[in-house]
Amino acid sequence: MRILSGIQPTGQPHLGNYFGMMEPAIRLQDEGEALYFIADLHALTTVHDPEALRRNSLEMAIDFMACGLDPKKATLFRQSDIPEVTELAWVLSSVTPMGLLKRCHSFKDKTGKGMEATHGLFSYPVLMAADIVLYDSDVVPVGQDQKQHLEVTRDLVVKINEAYGEETLRLPEPRIHAAAAAVPGLDGQKMSKSYHNTLPVFGEDKPLRKAIMRIPTDSTPLEDAKPTEESTILALYKLVASAAEFEQMVADHENGGVGYGDFKKRLFEAYWEYFAAFRRHRNEIAADPGEVTRILQDAATRAREIAVPVMDRVRKAVGLR
Amino acid sequence: MRILSGIQPTGQPHLGNYFGMMEPAIRLQDEGEALYFIADLHALTTVHDPEALRRNSLEMAIDFMACGLDPKKATLFRQSDIPEVTELAWVLSSVTPMGLLKRCHSFKDKTGKGMEATHGLFSYPVLMAADIVLYDSDVVPVGQDQKQHLEVTRDLVVKINEAYGEETLRLPEPRIHAAAAAVPGLDGQKMSKSYHNTLPVFGEDKPLRKAIMRIPTDSTPLEDAKPTEESTILALYKLVASAAEFEQMVADHENGGVGYGDFKKRLFEAYWEYFAAFRRHRNEIAADPGEVTRILQDAATRAREIAVPVMDRVRKAVGLR
Repeated sequence: MRILSGIQPTGQPHLGNYFGMMEPAIRLQDEGEALYFIADLHALTTVHDPEALRRNSLEMAIDFMACGLDPKKATLFRQSDIPEVTELAWVLSSVTPMGLLKRCHSFKDKTGKGMEATHGLFSYPVLMAADIVLYDSDVVPVGQDQKQHLEVTRDLVVKINEAYGEETLRLPEPRIHAAAAAVPGLDGQKMSKSYHNTLPVFGEDKPLRKAIMRIPTDSTPLEDAKPTEESTILALYKLVASAAEFEQMVADHENGGVGYGDFKKRLFEAYWEYFAAFRRHRNEIAADPGEVTRILQDAATRAREIAVPVMDRVRKAVGLR
Repeated sequence: MRILSGIQPTGQPHLGNYFGMMEPAIRLQDEGEALYFIADLHALTTVHDPEALRRNSLEMAIDFMACGLDPKKATLFRQSDIPEVTELAWVLSSVTPMGLLKRCHSFKDKTGKGMEATHGLFSYPVLMAADIVLYDSDVVPVGQDQKQHLEVTRDLVVKINEAYGEETLRLPEPRIHAAAAAVPGLDGQKMSKSYHNTLPVFGEDKPLRKAIMRIPTDSTPLEDAKPTEESTILALYKLVASAAEFEQMVADHENGGVGYGDFKKRLFEAYWEYFAAFRRHRNEIAADPGEVTRILQDAATRAREIAVPVMDRVRKAVGLR
């Protein structure tokens, strides 16, 4: 079973990225042949600072390994190291109905949030489809928000195979996981860089403690019971505390007598502790960026060994060279 | 001066292709460093038969050389042999406003004529821009119908250079030639495969004679003067006859006494004679398809020697690898 997933190098990963993509991907590295890419070609649509893009790509690799990605198990590579992906995207474009792309929510959502309506942003689902099928991927773990894009991928595979033969591209299966949507930002909306409500996986003690202490809460008096539904504190705490700690905080909400300040402190402590080992690990990895670059290059070599024969097969099937 | 031009391998070239693209390109091979590509990636949007695409690409190379393209002077290569072009197209996509593409006439024109509204067809101007700038092209000979696409290319170059530095991409200059629009089809509309009104450069004697004899004419009696304005016969004859022959036919129109059948016979004879040497040359070239393949491969090697450093420069500028 070949598993494929990607993440954009748009700066510090946050809890939404971690629980939504990184943590499931790291768990899956033991279940099959895992290929994970740092989507620098996708990031081009939002990052127009070359130094930032290069730095973020390297930092994302460091972050991923710090969180437990084992480069001996999973192949972690930069998307742009495998140029065949854009060639395959063009082939897919030739069978992609415009209507299919126009129906995708993400372009409207992103431009609605103020992102520039570029052709790159519009074409995103086609490049994502190429990302997946270039590696004959079997399984693609995605959050609910990416489900539509995987349906586009499957539509395009069916179209190519109808036009050029059933063996041309492998049909990937989605593995939908719910976690991504379940990570609220500090303001209660979905955690997302575009909402400026993120809690990063890695960062400095003081500003992060402050950020958590500023989570908006209601004005229930200290001695009264506090609502547990739609509580940002509880939702985040559940992700980073033990089951017993979480149950204790729920009980303390229901029984009253404990203030929000105390809950926030516990949230910070649990969060800080949860990532403590990762932070130490990160320091070790970041001390040798040359080694990280070598890991990415080795991974790209392995990824290309898969991609090149697939692209050759596609070229032959469609009539190129 | 580096000159770039491309032609789609969509089957037999016709007089519109010859006078609109091939003949000007062949003339320019003596004026500078000429790079001409057979646009098989573009053709994917219309040709979904792999054997036909491969065969047409080879045949187009044979046709081009038969018409006078000298592979020692001009670099004639297959577009898909230089995969960097799709990578560059993605980079350009990231700065391409959707509005710019939506304003392009050709997508609306082509879908209006019944072509499938695919993303590949919509993206055509972006890939065309990459075709041009990947080779640091100075001059692009285009017909009036491609002028807008060259403006898109120039817009994208300006955008990239504004974002990443003035030295990132070279700004190409159009060289507009009027011939393409001046080649009428057998029905008087612009000659185009999509109108099924073409006169091929190469073909069999009998069916071509028949096709010319079927050119619609008015019912002016043989002895009367015949209109010379908007005459398909005269417009085509002008392209293939000598100046003296053309003047004679104009006089015969004005003086009356000569019928349309006679004019059509003269047109066929002049047309057949015009391409006689090319037909002989074509037979020689087509006898050794292996040599044609070698020529295309050598040309691809030379084209790549230009493309790879340009793409490296772009990657560095935008922050990839």
